[in-house]
Amino acid sequence: MGKHYSAAMIVIGNEILSGRTQDKNINYVANKLVEHGVSLKEVRIIPDVEDIIIETIKTLKAQYDYIFTSGGIGPTHDDITAECIAKACDTTLELNQGAYDVLLTHYGSKEELTEPRLKMAHIPIGGTMIPNPVSAAPGFIIENIYVMAGVPRIMQAMMDHIVLGLEGGAVIESRTVPCPYAESKVAQGLGDIQNHYPQVDIGSYPHFQGGNLGVSVVLRSSDLVLLQKAEEEVKALIAAIG
Amino acid sequence: MGKHYSAAMIVIGNEILSGRTQDKNINYVANKLVEHGVSLKEVRIIPDVEDIIIETIKTLKAQYDYIFTSGGIGPTHDDITAECIAKACDTTLELNQGAYDVLLTHYGSKEELTEPRLKMAHIPIGGTMIPNPVSAAPGFIIENIYVMAGVPRIMQAMMDHIVLGLEGGAVIESRTVPCPYAESKVAQGLGDIQNHYPQVDIGSYPHFQGGNLGVSVVLRSSDLVLLQKAEEEVKALIAAIG
Repeated sequence: MGKHYSAAMIVIGNEILSGRTQDKNINYVANKLVEHGVSLKEVRIIPDVEDIIIETIKTLKAQYDYIFTSGGIGPTHDDITAECIAKACDTTLELNQGAYDVLLTHYGSKEELTEPRLKMAHIPIGGTMIPNPVSAAPGFIIENIYVMAGVPRIMQAMMDHIVLGLEGGAVIESRTVPCPYAESKVAQGLGDIQNHYPQVDIGSYPHFQGGNLGVSVVLRSSDLVLLQKAEEEVKALIAAIG
Repeated sequence: MGKHYSAAMIVIGNEILSGRTQDKNINYVANKLVEHGVSLKEVRIIPDVEDIIIETIKTLKAQYDYIFTSGGIGPTHDDITAECIAKACDTTLELNQGAYDVLLTHYGSKEELTEPRLKMAHIPIGGTMIPNPVSAAPGFIIENIYVMAGVPRIMQAMMDHIVLGLEGGAVIESRTVPCPYAESKVAQGLGDIQNHYPQVDIGSYPHFQGGNLGVSVVLRSSDLVLLQKAEEEVKALIAAIG
């Protein structure tokens, strides 16, 4: 078995906590990381409050291989993510020449680079730019922290760029077995199969479909032989109920 | 100004972290809390891992007025939330008579109350039940922790019940009227009754019981006279279909 890579995501934004906005970034990041053999271990959604951002970054960057953040890197007064991350990394913001050039091209002239726009060309000293193909204002990478925008389309473009350079471990494959019965009917059998296959992670997720209660049984493993064996046993268990 | 109430939410579930499932509960809880004057300060999404659940609960329950959790209270081997919360509160699980009665009615006989199903009748000592009008298996409240299911429709019904008791205002009573017909058959009639009784909150929660589709109609109000009148109209509506 190779190295196992872990990650945490930090969603920074009062609008998620107030219910005004439904987060769409967590699921995107989670899926991209799974595809690249990185295990998302925890997500925190926190408000735009300096002390909380700094403390959360400091705590999590020491615990995981990678930290991904979304939100708070725009031009307005409440966009404090970059400054907070600089502080959490014991550094300060500086004008990044690459970011400046990108914004100059995007806005067309120096006159158009107003103070709020110039703010977006500042990233922590030692950081490198994450390009933003949608609206120019870049994200950045510093230490093991990947700082992205909150707007889903921009965040997705940044994440797509990031994962290309991300070192990952063995890719975890998954199989989903549909089950048309209530979860309690398969609970005992699934528990037994899980005990026989400790290297396969077996989860069951109840749902309503067309008015009927059912379960999706999801099996995950990096060992494809064991994964297939366990999958066959789950199918046999469900077939035996019908 | 009265007291300011703070809350944290803990989403417990590998399926969110793996990207398989897009969370829909955070936004619902956030909006309900806002409506009730409670401020959601932080959300954590964590895996179904005992140590992590216990530590997260212990940390957050000391920091906030209310803790809301979703996920991990079903019948299968990976549903460990109830046990972990009992441990975080220095107590253990016990068979809850109210939960047992509800499950007995739901499944129809003692023979149908298999071990995995009985598991769902166990809640921490000192806890009180949160009713589940969709699939019977209850959530629970212990200390300042509100423990809900992960399936969005069930979680929403539980949250709707919880918020009414959150603020020490007028006590809200609830009545549940079972309906053996599909939701679409009573939707219009329920809408009419709701319009006649704006002080009564009427919700309908479809379910699948003993092979049949049905609905639990839940009425809530602090005005017991209106509550009873509305309940009688709902019963008459359902009787007229049969």
